[in-house]
Amino acid sequence: MIRPVILSGGGGTRLWPLSRSGNPKQFQRIVGEQSLLQATARRCAGSAFATPLISTGAGQRDSVIDQLEAIGVTPVAILLEPAARNTAPAIAAAAHWALARGEDDPLLVMPSDHSIPDAAAFQAAVAAAVPAALEGNLLTFGIRPTRAHTGYGYIQAGEPVSEAVRKVERFVEKPDGECAAAFVADGNYFWNSGIFLFRPSAFLSELKRYAPDVTDQVEQAMAAAASDAVFVKPGDAFGAVRDVSIDYAVMEHSGKVLVVPVTFAWSDVGSWDAVRELMPADESGNVLQGDVLALDVTNSLIRSDSDVTVAVIGLDRVVCVVTRDAVFIAPLDRAQDVKKVVEELRARGSTRT
Amino acid sequence: MIRPVILSGGGGTRLWPLSRSGNPKQFQRIVGEQSLLQATARRCAGSAFATPLISTGAGQRDSVIDQLEAIGVTPVAILLEPAARNTAPAIAAAAHWALARGEDDPLLVMPSDHSIPDAAAFQAAVAAAVPAALEGNLLTFGIRPTRAHTGYGYIQAGEPVSEAVRKVERFVEKPDGECAAAFVADGNYFWNSGIFLFRPSAFLSELKRYAPDVTDQVEQAMAAAASDAVFVKPGDAFGAVRDVSIDYAVMEHSGKVLVVPVTFAWSDVGSWDAVRELMPADESGNVLQGDVLALDVTNSLIRSDSDVTVAVIGLDRVVCVVTRDAVFIAPLDRAQDVKKVVEELRARGSTRT
Repeated sequence: MIRPVILSGGGGTRLWPLSRSGNPKQFQRIVGEQSLLQATARRCAGSAFATPLISTGAGQRDSVIDQLEAIGVTPVAILLEPAARNTAPAIAAAAHWALARGEDDPLLVMPSDHSIPDAAAFQAAVAAAVPAALEGNLLTFGIRPTRAHTGYGYIQAGEPVSEAVRKVERFVEKPDGECAAAFVADGNYFWNSGIFLFRPSAFLSELKRYAPDVTDQVEQAMAAAASDAVFVKPGDAFGAVRDVSIDYAVMEHSGKVLVVPVTFAWSDVGSWDAVRELMPADESGNVLQGDVLALDVTNSLIRSDSDVTVAVIGLDRVVCVVTRDAVFIAPLDRAQDVKKVVEELRARGSTRT
Repeated sequence: MIRPVILSGGGGTRLWPLSRSGNPKQFQRIVGEQSLLQATARRCAGSAFATPLISTGAGQRDSVIDQLEAIGVTPVAILLEPAARNTAPAIAAAAHWALARGEDDPLLVMPSDHSIPDAAAFQAAVAAAVPAALEGNLLTFGIRPTRAHTGYGYIQAGEPVSEAVRKVERFVEKPDGECAAAFVADGNYFWNSGIFLFRPSAFLSELKRYAPDVTDQVEQAMAAAASDAVFVKPGDAFGAVRDVSIDYAVMEHSGKVLVVPVTFAWSDVGSWDAVRELMPADESGNVLQGDVLALDVTNSLIRSDSDVTVAVIGLDRVVCVVTRDAVFIAPLDRAQDVKKVVEELRARGSTRT
């Protein structure tokens, strides 16, 4: 069986004011009636999947438990990172946990805060990748790009190794617009989704080759782990592990990396602009949520997440998000500048980030 | 002494979401630290003035009392209209009240929700008009227009009758843009401010000539008035009086009407655009009030009237007003369309208007 590993340690504020450092976007109902975490857990449920392992921070354990309980999912374990050290240490800890249980079935590693509406297509892609994972390869899922996005990393796919799987030529960090357009036209470049499938032994073996410090320190922290019911808390050594992503630590170096090109719709839900694209718009191109009144408004995202009436007149391509204690308004194409707002609020000592 | 009569019966929502039908704009701190009602009461304080009479609705008596008490003003009386019947009946009731007390000194009738920053200039204009009022004339104060406003009525002034006072050629209802521009260029047209000075006997005499039904019914309602401390509640007959403005009932017809052209700054505070013009702007042309963060925002009015953080990026010439339970956003030049919002919210059964 495939063991899902859901990474829920992020504390981003790219969807401020809805997402906060203490209540990040994976716990929010951004699209539909479930939170992104709940949708992620649902997406990897079924006979092919074991119960999931969740990796998160101590401050978010209650949110994780409550949200999974609400959809009837009991995780096999919740790894509580003493400090957020990025994806390579988090995944290494999960791999150590599995091997310590005597499990070497493939781990399906997934961010908790992405959107993939078509769960069946997702599961089919995972199933097609299993044979290569069982052989000891590290599989990454590459999303066929639908536009020249400059906010994502790209993976250049090489020759096929099976119907579903191709070799990897190279990883490319966020490109400029010209490069991104060339990648889309080329047809062999895919967005790096941050979703992986590999046996824990295969991952740790490659991690030890390319980032031995991370392997050793995580091993040490897991040897000192404290367990309490489903909770597993690595020892304090975890806080000293190098902060490094799985891409940078392993995937960009290892010769065992393969890519599974997929065509299902995917979004990292990384900005309010991306949220608008995910939602069905009305005939004016608007996505309106909550107690919203829009007159002569077009191509906009307006949402009230609290019991506040939001009335907007005569604007085009804006985002307006209203919560109980904060309001954010910007042109859609500047939605990503919300990070400047968060920085400025923090500089002012605001507690609302 | 001049008896101020402050008309505080309005329930407008042109400054929604700040102003509500139950808490209209005269009670709000729109400009500066005092409400418009408080500023109006302060403007007519001094040795030339008796304590004011306030005309308001029963639902607003507590707001009136509280706000005047806060600035140390005790009204001589508060006329509580059983129903709002527009300005002619309200002023007629005040005139009856004065005559019943044996007073025939000039009444200075003022809306409670206008802004006149220069109180000294206002008082000087009033003083200059007193002699003509004592002679039995009905004086209206005409504001020298600073632009071709199409939202105001205009008064065409005729030949001078004294240094401060001129005859009236005609009243003009809200003109179109071309007419308004011609009026401004002409120099003899003035905005109808809704501020009046006349003896109660003179007013009632002219009202009886041109709107005898109003005079008779108000007289009947005042004969049945109930008094309780400072409160005077006209009898129920008041509710049957014709709904008619002082302009329409008397001023546009009476040969005793004179105009006092004045040059002091004045605003009816009739839209968010007008509010922005009243407030000092920063170097970006913005008026920001409350917990507001504006990045690359220009020529805009953004205010948070509650404990809500409002962050705006990259907009020009917008109004954004945030209260505890409602948010309004529009281009400044469409600020007056807030009335469409209020209509739509009422149609939806919202209690937030």
